[in-house]
Formats: sequence, structure tokens, C-alpha cells
Amino acid sequence: MTNGHLDIIERSAELFDEVFVAVLINKNKQGLFSIDERMALLREITAHLPNVRIDSWYGLLVDYCADHDIAAITKGLRAVSDFDYELQMAQMNKRLSGVDTLFMSTNPEYSFLSSSLIKEVATHGGDITGLVPDHVRDELVKRIAEQHAQ
Amino acid sequence: MTNGHLDIIERSAELFDEVFVAVLINKNKQGLFSIDERMALLREITAHLPNVRIDSWYGLLVDYCADHDIAAITKGLRAVSDFDYELQMAQMNKRLSGVDTLFMSTNPEYSFLSSSLIKEVATHGGDITGLVPDHVRDELVKRIAEQHAQ
Amino acid sequence: MTNGHLDIIERSAELFDEVFVAVLINKNKQGLFSIDERMALLREITAHLPNVRIDSWYGLLVDYCADHDIAAITKGLRAVSDFDYELQMAQMNKRLSGVDTLFMSTNPEYSFLSSSLIKEVATHGGDITGLVPDHVRDELVKRIAEQHAQ
Amino acid sequence: MTNGHLDIIERSAELFDEVFVAVLINKNKQGLFSIDERMALLREITAHLPNVRIDSWYGLLVDYCADHDIAAITKGLRAVSDFDYELQMAQMNKRLSGVDTLFMSTNPEYSFLSSSLIKEVATHGGDITGLVPDHVRDELVKRIAEQHAQ
Amino acid sequence: MTNGHLDIIERSAELFDEVFVAVLINKNKQGLFSIDERMALLREITAHLPNVRIDSWYGLLVDYCADHDIAAITKGLRAVSDFDYELQMAQMNKRLSGVDTLFMSTNPEYSFLSSSLIKEVATHGGDITGLVPDHVRDELVKRIAEQHAQ
Amino acid sequence: MTNGHLDIIERSAELFDEVFVAVLINKNKQGLFSIDERMALLREITAHLPNVRIDSWYGLLVDYCADHDIAAITKGLRAVSDFDYELQMAQMNKRLSGVDTLFMSTNPEYSFLSSSLIKEVATHGGDITGLVPDHVRDELVKRIAEQHAQ
Repeated sequence: MTNGHLDIIERSAELFDEVFVAVLINKNKQGLFSIDERMALLREITAHLPNVRIDSWYGLLVDYCADHDIAAITKGLRAVSDFDYELQMAQMNKRLSGVDTLFMSTNPEYSFLSSSLIKEVATHGGDITGLVPDHVRDELVKRIAEQHAQ
Repeated sequence: MTNGHLDIIERSAELFDEVFVAVLINKNKQGLFSIDERMALLREITAHLPNVRIDSWYGLLVDYCADHDIAAITKGLRAVSDFDYELQMAQMNKRLSGVDTLFMSTNPEYSFLSSSLIKEVATHGGDITGLVPDHVRDELVKRIAEQHAQ
Repeated sequence: MTNGHLDIIERSAELFDEVFVAVLINKNKQGLFSIDERMALLREITAHLPNVRIDSWYGLLVDYCADHDIAAITKGLRAVSDFDYELQMAQMNKRLSGVDTLFMSTNPEYSFLSSSLIKEVATHGGDITGLVPDHVRDELVKRIAEQHAQ
Repeated sequence: MTNGHLDIIERSAELFDEVFVAVLINKNKQGLFSIDERMALLREITAHLPNVRIDSWYGLLVDYCADHDIAAITKGLRAVSDFDYELQMAQMNKRLSGVDTLFMSTNPEYSFLSSSLIKEVATHGGDITGLVPDHVRDELVKRIAEQHAQ
Repeated sequence: MTNGHLDIIERSAELFDEVFVAVLINKNKQGLFSIDERMALLREITAHLPNVRIDSWYGLLVDYCADHDIAAITKGLRAVSDFDYELQMAQMNKRLSGVDTLFMSTNPEYSFLSSSLIKEVATHGGDITGLVPDHVRDELVKRIAEQHAQ
Repeated sequence: MTNGHLDIIERSAELFDEVFVAVLINKNKQGLFSIDERMALLREITAHLPNVRIDSWYGLLVDYCADHDIAAITKGLRAVSDFDYELQMAQMNKRLSGVDTLFMSTNPEYSFLSSSLIKEVATHGGDITGLVPDHVRDELVKRIAEQHAQ
């Protein structure tokens, strides 16, 4: 959850009546934070956006959209390597259920951010202030310290 | 005006309350059709879309958006070479006025279409049926025949 | 084995006298189907192509080509992210043995298909009819059901 | 006509029974060499390839292919920026007439060559030996000298 | 001359003992500013960089480098579409004279800037403050007003 | 360690007073060679370059640069897929500490080389002479034979 993600959420919340931010439940991978912890973080940093709902999903995104009457998916596009994969996903989702994907250009200031890069920098003690919301930074640094202590 | 453009207009008309399709007035280049002719063509092929308005514009797109209370621009993305230029434009427009650009994935079936390629094929007598709306095909073929006759 | 792959095989079979379709034996990864099962599937869906031979290979592709007097490798190119990797492989193979690689443009209709995406959609119960040959769809759905039952 | 082009012609001549190298007649642009001069240059540098025929064409490439019973078009791919445009052309040609395009990876040694870059270097007196066939270099240098003399 | 260019000049001036900024003399194209005016603008905005020299050049860049004992060329890379062309130029220059090109990543904040886009925005009265040095902005706005007055 | 890497090291050594070549210590992955063995290989093949120092590092590259007063990082760029990731890293490193990254174009002859591809070819007995320094080839072939013997 970087400032780049938050920027996309904020801009989506301005354009649409209701925005769902849904965390993917991945049964094969245990991240640094649990699904519940990630949803709590998201609720915290989107507290100023009344039309944003935090949720989680499992399975096909198109099924989640159908279940919640969602008309379109929004995504941020940073770079060409994003583009190929996301275009493929968008065309598959369109084919499966007719749901459309709307890509938004990343704020240039955040174009070099990725979750994995942020995590790597934080793991080695680099300062990520300004790259993620302050609350996320604090939780991430705390969690990494706990892991190192084990 | 290809079937790829029409597909983007139709999908935008489904997602948004009102859609403006605005032809750019380019004072340096005289195309095969005049601005008025192109607007008439657009009206013809979007006649089934009640929330689509055909218009023309000159100057900065962000000024046009501000004048008409337009919240977002939609564009189709076909290929990586589109991506770089369009991303640059989107970031500039966002910077100039805050207006957002929403990119939609092209229908794969139309991903290889471009206006200039269609025009070249038609000029040499190739069959463009199914690549552009029938009405556009008829007008394009007629206009090219007129030019050759001169 | 998607409809995109079958399309490349059919077009290769039209252009060349004899076409080998060879499944790579990967000792580190056990897929959903065994090598023999995959070869049986390929035989089934290419039964209408008399000049196509189904085989398997292990090791360097250039060695397989040399052993079977194969003059050129054909591959489908879908997207830019394919391009970089495949170009690298093609130049390496050319350097190792002189064998050439011929890239064919994917049918646009199948440009968004990948084996992993198909498998993911099928795993979550999405309908993949029209994206893979019917016989492949039936076997894939059956196999996934068996896995879930375990 | 660079060494990169000659490399693609030579490799095509090895893989196929007969190869047509056809110069596009562009009525809007007068190059440094006339169509006849370019065909003469091509005949000179492909004299060692008995199954290569030099020709010229005007109009749609698919019509030329149909008239000469040509089963496939071969093209060299250098870089990603080639890829997008050439893929678009290949899919359009496939759609128009069923003719397939086979892309070959450029010899890495020639991957940075383009006709316009070669011409620019030669115009300013740079040495292009090894980048184009010697005969082409001599003719190009002579022609540029004639132009400067005017 | 955008803030993106100035950023590359400043970073080059930090890394190297002496930096030449050389304006290309293009005999076929008359820009908004003459070569002398552009050099004066460059001198103005690099006045704080004592090891930067402003110059102009005509012909091959490698010849200019050889004449001035320049060991390397620095360039900013913004996007993938820059990459292909610039890599081609760099490999050609390396081949012609051995001179190396060093690419620097653009400051993300300026990644969407191009001279032509800036000029287009300014021509239509858009505010380019913060995108180009203030002095350049003033001169550009003045020049455009003069042109409109004609 | 391919001839492509050696080419970048040699060109860096020509342009800068002192060059550090530092092997990343990855605690999660055990490669074919240990860190000490890789440093010994690097010392062997850069023995002719007096201003090159071989070292290893762990953690953030920007911290290593700060500790050793390193002003800039040099990297080879082969292909577009390199570009996106490397640009992202470069912009992050610039942001974290101000250290700049200078990208050099790969020698075209080595543009298709990658460490993983070299290793795969060698594992299956392909000849990698000319693609890596002879000393590296000998050690790699020996190590692979030892592994197979186990």
C-alpha cells in the first residue's frame, strides 16, 4: 500500500459514486500482514473518503464485481511492463463478464514505487517517509523489527 | 473513425452519464473530411447512444473540459507505442487542470486498427468492411473515388 | 494449450512441409498434466493436420532441431513482454547452431490468452469455452475437479 | 539497404524455395535513388542468391502477394518500436487476404542499423564500411557527393 | 529547454569535470528561437554551473566529441519510446568513434515533459510555470505573442 | 558474469577514476558459486584493469555507495524489459540518497546474453565460448560436471 495506490483510490473516489477497495486473499502466500491487518490499514488511510468501502475477495475478480454490481475496475499504470500484463487481464475480464477496466496514469512522483521495492528498502532500514502513508510506514517498520527479533 | 473508436465510445456511454465526443480542429492539416463532415459521420454512427454528444474543439483539451464541466477523458489503448505518448499527455493534462484520463483496453479484435492504416487500405481498393462502421466505409470509399477522379 | 497455440500450429502447417510440435520435459516442475497426457491432448486437437508430428524434448532446443533436421522454429508473438525474451532466445539459438526462429503475429482474438491465465480462470470456475479447444477444456475442468476432491 | 536487410534476405533464401525482394514505389517521396537504381543495387548485392528475385510494387502488399502466389512475408525485427507497427501491419494483412508474416530476429551485430541513420552518417562523411554492402556504400557516397556539388 | 533538461545538465555537472551543452544546428528547420538565442537562454539558466560550457554543433556528434576531447555523452531517458531510438544512436556512435553514451533516469517529476508538448501548451495559453525555467517561460511566452501579432 | 558484464566494467574503467564491482550477498539464494568464488572469478577476469576493485555488499546499494564515497552507479541496458525495472531502481536510489545511475548501452554483440540463459546452455552441454570469459567458461563447465556427478 504505497502513496501511488492511495493516489489512485483518491482519484477514483472523486470520479465515481462508490469505490470498493478489495484485498485479494491468496491462499498460497502469507504476506507481512494478514488480510485483516491489511484491511484495517486501508480503512485507516482512507478514513477521509466516505464513498470508499474496504473489502476482501477470493477467486475471480469478475465474480466479485458481479456479486457487488460493480461496473468498472480502476487500475494505476506505471510503466510499460505493467501495461502488457494488465491489458491481458483487462481483455480477459471483459471477455468473461463484460466488466470494463479503466486505467489511470500514475502520479509521476510515485511512478517508481512498487510494494516489493518499498518492503525491500524498509527491511534494510531505508527511510520510506513520503513514499507510503505515515501510518503504513509505522506499522511496516514495527512489523519488520518484530520479524528481525525472532 | 474505426470500429475500435466506436467500441470505446459505446463502452464510455455505458459507464458515464454523459459522453462528449469532440473532434479536434487542426488548422494546419486538411483531412479527407471537413470538421462538419466528420461530426455528421459521428452523429450518424452514434445515433443509438442517447447520452453521447458530438462536438468539436480547438486549443487545449483541458480548457474544453473545464468549459463543459467534464470530469474525465477516456481513451483506448491499443499498443505500447500508444502508451508512452498517451501517458505523457495524461500526466500533463492532470498537471494543468486536475482532469483525469481513463484508459480502456481496446477490444482485441480491433487492436490492429488505426485511422491511417484504414485510409491507406481503402485508397488502394482493399475491403474495409467490418473494420469501420458501414456508413463510414461508404463515405470513405466515395470520397476517395472523388479524389482519384480529379 | 490455448486456441492461440493451435492457431500458430495450423498456420505453420500451411506454410511448411512438416511441423514438429514438441513438449518440453521440465524435470523441476510437475504440471497439471503429465508429458504423455499433454502429447495425447496435442494429438487429439491436431488430428486434422496430417503434416504435424507430436513429440517431446529435453535439453537444448537447438540439439533437438539438429537431431530432427529442423530448419526453423516458429513462435507466436503476443505482446512486447514476449518480444524481449523471445528475441533473446532466438539470437542465442541462431548463435549456437544457425537455426532460425520465425515469429508469427498472434491472431488478435487470442492475443490476451496465456496458459497460466486460462488455468487460473478454470480453477475458479470461469468459463473458458472458445479460449481453448473443447477437448482441452473438458480435460482441464475434469482434472481441476479431481484436484479439488483430494 | 543495410547489412541487416541483406542478412534477412540471405536467411529467407535459405529457408524458402523462392524469395521476392520488392521495392515499394512511393509516389509522394523521391529518395536518393530511383526505383530502378535501387533494384539494380539489390540485384548486385544478391547476385550470389539464385532463388532471389528483385521486383517493385505499388499499392497493397497483399495484392502483390496474391498476384505472385506468395505464401508469406518475411521481416526483420530489431526493436520494440518496430514490433508494434509491424504487428499491426501483419494482423491487417492476415485479415485482408490470409497472407502470413514471419518475423526474423535481426542479427544482433546489425540491430542498431536503420536506413535513415546510415544515410545521415554518410551525409556528414562518417565511415559506413561494414554497415552496408561495399557496393551500396560506394554508390551512396558517390550520390551524396553529387548532391553536395549541386 | 525544459526543467527535465536542466536537471540532466545539473546532475552531469556534478559527476564530471567539464560539461559541454551543445545545440544542434539543423539547416532544414527554423525553430521558434535562433541558435544564438537558444545558446543565450542556455547560458542564462546554467549561470550557476561554472563547469558547464554552452556551444553549438553541426554534422556528426562523434566528430564534435573528437574535436573537443569529450569522453562520454549524457542523455536523459524518460520512456520506453525514447529508449529504442537512443540505444540505436548510442550503439552507432560507439561503433563510429568509440565514444560512450551514459543515460540518466529522468527525475520522475519531469518524466512527462517534452519540448513539443511544452510549446503546444504555451501556444494555447496554458501555464507552464514549474515545467521550464522561469526565464525560458518568459521568453517563450513573449515570442509566441509576437508570432500571434503578425 | 558474461562478456556483456565485462564489457560494461571495461568501459566504466575507462571513464572513471575508480570502479567498484560489488557482488550482492543474497541470503535466500545459493547460486552455483559462493560469494568468495564469484569475487575470485571477477578478480581473475579484471586483472588487466588496475582501477577496478572487487567487493561484495549486503543491504541497500545506496548505503554501500555512501560508505565508499561512490558518486554514481553504472549499469548495462540490453532491452526494454530491463529498462522499466532499472529505471524504477534508479529513481528510488536517487530519491533515497541522491546517488545517480548511469546506463550504458550494451555492446550489440552481447545484447542477447543473460546469466540465466548462459547457465542453461552450459548445463545442457552447449558451447558458451565467446559468450563468457574463457576462465569463467572453464569454471562453470567444471562446476556443472561436479553437480551432475553427485
